[in-house]
Amino acid sequence: MIEHIVWSRGLLRLLDQRLLPDKAEFADCRTPTEPASAIKNMVVRGAPAIGITAAYGMALAAFRAEGKSAGSRLADLLSAGEDLKRARPTAVNLAWAVDRMAVKAREAAGCAGDLASVLSAEAEAIHAEDIASCKAMGANGLPLMPEGGRVLTHCNAGALATGGYGTALGLVRAAREAGRIKMVYADETRPYLQGARLTAWELAEDNIPVTVLCDDMAASLMAKGQVDVVIVGADRIAANGDTANKIGTYGVAVLASHHRIPFLVAAPSSTFDMSLPSGEGIPIEERPADEVAVIAGRRMVPRGAAVLHPAFDVTPAPLITAIVTERGVISPVTGANVGRILRRPH
Amino acid sequence: MIEHIVWSRGLLRLLDQRLLPDKAEFADCRTPTEPASAIKNMVVRGAPAIGITAAYGMALAAFRAEGKSAGSRLADLLSAGEDLKRARPTAVNLAWAVDRMAVKAREAAGCAGDLASVLSAEAEAIHAEDIASCKAMGANGLPLMPEGGRVLTHCNAGALATGGYGTALGLVRAAREAGRIKMVYADETRPYLQGARLTAWELAEDNIPVTVLCDDMAASLMAKGQVDVVIVGADRIAANGDTANKIGTYGVAVLASHHRIPFLVAAPSSTFDMSLPSGEGIPIEERPADEVAVIAGRRMVPRGAAVLHPAFDVTPAPLITAIVTERGVISPVTGANVGRILRRPH
Repeated sequence: MIEHIVWSRGLLRLLDQRLLPDKAEFADCRTPTEPASAIKNMVVRGAPAIGITAAYGMALAAFRAEGKSAGSRLADLLSAGEDLKRARPTAVNLAWAVDRMAVKAREAAGCAGDLASVLSAEAEAIHAEDIASCKAMGANGLPLMPEGGRVLTHCNAGALATGGYGTALGLVRAAREAGRIKMVYADETRPYLQGARLTAWELAEDNIPVTVLCDDMAASLMAKGQVDVVIVGADRIAANGDTANKIGTYGVAVLASHHRIPFLVAAPSSTFDMSLPSGEGIPIEERPADEVAVIAGRRMVPRGAAVLHPAFDVTPAPLITAIVTERGVISPVTGANVGRILRRPH
Repeated sequence: MIEHIVWSRGLLRLLDQRLLPDKAEFADCRTPTEPASAIKNMVVRGAPAIGITAAYGMALAAFRAEGKSAGSRLADLLSAGEDLKRARPTAVNLAWAVDRMAVKAREAAGCAGDLASVLSAEAEAIHAEDIASCKAMGANGLPLMPEGGRVLTHCNAGALATGGYGTALGLVRAAREAGRIKMVYADETRPYLQGARLTAWELAEDNIPVTVLCDDMAASLMAKGQVDVVIVGADRIAANGDTANKIGTYGVAVLASHHRIPFLVAAPSSTFDMSLPSGEGIPIEERPADEVAVIAGRRMVPRGAAVLHPAFDVTPAPLITAIVTERGVISPVTGANVGRILRRPH
């Protein structure tokens, strides 16, 4: 399995996803400001992966604060956590991981033990639980995967977007292990091309057949009857099942509905934000215009034109056939079913 | 008005659209093989523009054949016409223009006159008629354009895709002259980025407000209520109104239908192929994978992945609110209404 977030006490190594598929190079982080920058600048991306990275960022803060007083250690940690939370606004897993690390830090702060070791172990636990959670999603989603399946996915909700194995691509991997995958169609996913660069790379590394297409080719592929199921990940899911995910996901959901193709979301329960009754309250990050206008150093949009760059969109629950979590499958996607599945112990 | 196809007897100058928006440089053609290559390599693109270019290509062939016998001149011309037709398969205007020039060449072949002058004048007539036709489409489409309109368009069906003024952007220009345009949203249109590079460039040159978005952002823009009407061009229209246009158009039509936004096609009557009862018979050009996989010299797709590159898709007539031609507006789009409008004299 691809290891792209590598931790050893006091050193966090992140595979720089901006350089894929050309180069597989790691960026080293030794201070908690480095993971925050890495998240902001998309060295690492994907809702679960940035949660794990933030957890290790808090552990780095604990290592940096060694030798300080208990109170000032805790203050350093909580301040690092706030910086990490601000790095990207849409994915809720980021705040979830920081909050969980902060709870652990507060519990441990009063004790005699080694705070850095406690937080290092907690971050490793978050990482290991995420991989286990992806595998549970794969098992839970398997009954929804057709034989000889041709899957369309958008963005990268794979090993690179998680601790490993993937959410949407976790379902693909589980189905592949069961001999059910004929082809994965990867939307290239402008502007960051996570589909072309990351999904295609990690599937090709695992010898899973993959074909890249431009985002505007998905509709005709569906019309030709070449897509059996669509699977995507999620950055934040409201209590009614409305799902924020990479920009373009909503359009794919509308197209899937038009062509009567099942549309699945795969996401761990940490992706749910039960404080939001619907998707309307999910903050949508606007990113810099030049991430759209300039590709590989070449300016593609004339200076006289404006540029849009919302990084996410919201797919209303009625367009989603099922949400696959590590605790079970939510289908049909209603507030009642979300509540019922999330209350299950894992 | 932008002049991008410039003819003087024996010399055809084409604005190299591959270099826009960075550079506005012309490619010079003196032999008929040069316009055929220019069409194939997308120096010039857009259904009406490649028809006009092919017509001038035939005129170039006549200039090159000066001094030869009448029979061998005609043979050269017809052979050049076949090469030009083969340059791109989907747009029917290309064959239409070549056939019209061939008819003229046959008529003139038996006469004493100067064949090159006759064909030069015929190509100039095709060019001038196309501009007049675009302006007629603009006038015919104006009643369909809302006040304060926010228009979404895909690809470039503008001055650069025609002899000048544009088909879809001809409607925009006519509406702009009537004070009705608030904003034009231009899908960037992968893989060739005709929206980002060409539509944005020509609208900005004309001081028409334009905002570029990635193709996968159109759905969320529609969901936010920020699109009042979608207007696109066409490469070939079957007798029942099914419309082939740039890849991605069909997806935009599905999205427009889902959001109850009018979806207009603007195209001259030369775009209709009445020999095809429906869109099923329209040949869809497959272009090289590297036009998708490599952007600005950087390979974005790993070698282990396959790549799709259909250059066009087909939008079924029921998804089209109206087809605006120079002869009138076809709405609702049915075979009967297509026949009725096309029979009108212009």
